[in-house]
Amino acid sequence: MKKGNAMKARQIAILGGGLIGRSWSYMFAQSGHRVRICDEASESIVSARNWLAGELSSEDTARVQFCSSLEDAVSGADYVQECVSELIDVKRAIFREAVSLAPASCIFASSTSALLPDAIFSDIAHSDRCLVAHPANPPHVLPIVELVPGRSTSERTMDEVEELMLSLGQDVVRLKRASPGFVLNRLQAALVEEALSLVEAGIADPDDIDRTVRSGLGMRWAFVGPFETMDLNSKGGFEMYTRTLGPALAASAPGGPETSKWNGGAPARVATARRQLLKVSDIPARQSWLIQKLKLLRALKNGVETAGEEQHER
Amino acid sequence: MKKGNAMKARQIAILGGGLIGRSWSYMFAQSGHRVRICDEASESIVSARNWLAGELSSEDTARVQFCSSLEDAVSGADYVQECVSELIDVKRAIFREAVSLAPASCIFASSTSALLPDAIFSDIAHSDRCLVAHPANPPHVLPIVELVPGRSTSERTMDEVEELMLSLGQDVVRLKRASPGFVLNRLQAALVEEALSLVEAGIADPDDIDRTVRSGLGMRWAFVGPFETMDLNSKGGFEMYTRTLGPALAASAPGGPETSKWNGGAPARVATARRQLLKVSDIPARQSWLIQKLKLLRALKNGVETAGEEQHER
Repeated sequence: MKKGNAMKARQIAILGGGLIGRSWSYMFAQSGHRVRICDEASESIVSARNWLAGELSSEDTARVQFCSSLEDAVSGADYVQECVSELIDVKRAIFREAVSLAPASCIFASSTSALLPDAIFSDIAHSDRCLVAHPANPPHVLPIVELVPGRSTSERTMDEVEELMLSLGQDVVRLKRASPGFVLNRLQAALVEEALSLVEAGIADPDDIDRTVRSGLGMRWAFVGPFETMDLNSKGGFEMYTRTLGPALAASAPGGPETSKWNGGAPARVATARRQLLKVSDIPARQSWLIQKLKLLRALKNGVETAGEEQHER
Repeated sequence: MKKGNAMKARQIAILGGGLIGRSWSYMFAQSGHRVRICDEASESIVSARNWLAGELSSEDTARVQFCSSLEDAVSGADYVQECVSELIDVKRAIFREAVSLAPASCIFASSTSALLPDAIFSDIAHSDRCLVAHPANPPHVLPIVELVPGRSTSERTMDEVEELMLSLGQDVVRLKRASPGFVLNRLQAALVEEALSLVEAGIADPDDIDRTVRSGLGMRWAFVGPFETMDLNSKGGFEMYTRTLGPALAASAPGGPETSKWNGGAPARVATARRQLLKVSDIPARQSWLIQKLKLLRALKNGVETAGEEQHER
């Protein structure tokens, strides 16, 4: 995760004071931006205010305002982050109104995980300044955000939102185009589909799946992604990994070797990308680095798992 | 990960002094067992000896012996962990000889990730005492081991090896039956196949995939597996998650809704298994626990990532 990059403080409107809205507010305020949270429900405002008062310093809290009117929220705003319910009509209506009330230069982002940007923004006047900025849940502890452009989202909008997200300390994934599930949820869904298949076939119990991930795959993936994992697992890096294990992986792919992407053009692209990030001669040093970090995580988890098991035993 | 459970010290034979063999040796010696590492190549012995001297206390080191003869290694052994190359004929030959030389009660395990137990042990006399015990790489930092039975592996053998692995502090996944890729590599392969698909479709670059996992999915999965993640993401747990999101997940499954396991019997089994581990009313407390742990991991990574980026920049 990148440390928050310094940038000029912005005026941020958060639409919706639920769990996602307050988590975004926390990040923006903590990074020096001014925040107005808008929610029509006064209980949500009270609840968000209490939560933020407990999480933020008094200095950061002073940068957060609360309001019940959309007009107040977006007045003078540089950036709007929408966090209302996942109903297409609700989102379309709120953006239509927000665009009519906000300054001409304002950027509009939806937190949606399920809706595509073109579905939300199709009838918005300034859709070049609209996009999806999808966080993980909860945003303030998982430092990732997917920026998903619609057909008319401008490169300049993507650049500006990327800079803003980096100022929050978020790692930014910038999709080339929208696609259902974006990246994070598609990767998750693929693994879970296979996990369900193992349960259905009677090969492993549900808790065996969870254990395999949390004591194995997930620990490694907390530091290096799946492509880097394979890059580090071969002396010659990803290219050699593909040559050695690609045919077997293609043969055992869920859809069979005909449709396996191990037989397509992607592995070569991954190999090229990896070599731009790490020389083959630096692989052993990176492996040693990973081992050290896994030892630290294991020590952290040894305390953690005890607490977790107590939790489970209640 | 479970803390190492106390058990009577055993005599362990490690066949092969490479990276996996020495890592197993480290775990067994550190947990109080006596270890004999066997390798015909004297360079391997020297290299393993040096590595272990650097990693183990002198008290633990004193429990490790080195030899070049299989007979010396398995003489008096309670347990044999084979870590030679992934060639079926080499493994079959070494097990045939080891079984003829070891005590009648000895248990024989292969570290293989690619070969099925019945392929390795089909012509072994005591195949009820044979199995695959597959670690992650490297075993001593990733606390997971998959126990994979062959057709004739006895329950008693599985029980004894599970107890032995728990004494090392390893988390144990006990497969009901063998299947190519076991559990860990099948889950990994499913996610990577989807990752390659996203690269091939031009939706995301390879490093975007890695970033999504290491700053998002992987951090969560380092503490809770994929089923628990979904269980915690719905007020009503996995059962409600399935009802709310199952149809959409099935519709967007790689093979389409007809073959999606979201439409099969597995989700109900997962829901039942989750409720045996955690009450619905305890979900909020477990969510809070996870958030605290993610904050600790994020702090750990903030140091880590800096080191990692330096590495990448060299």
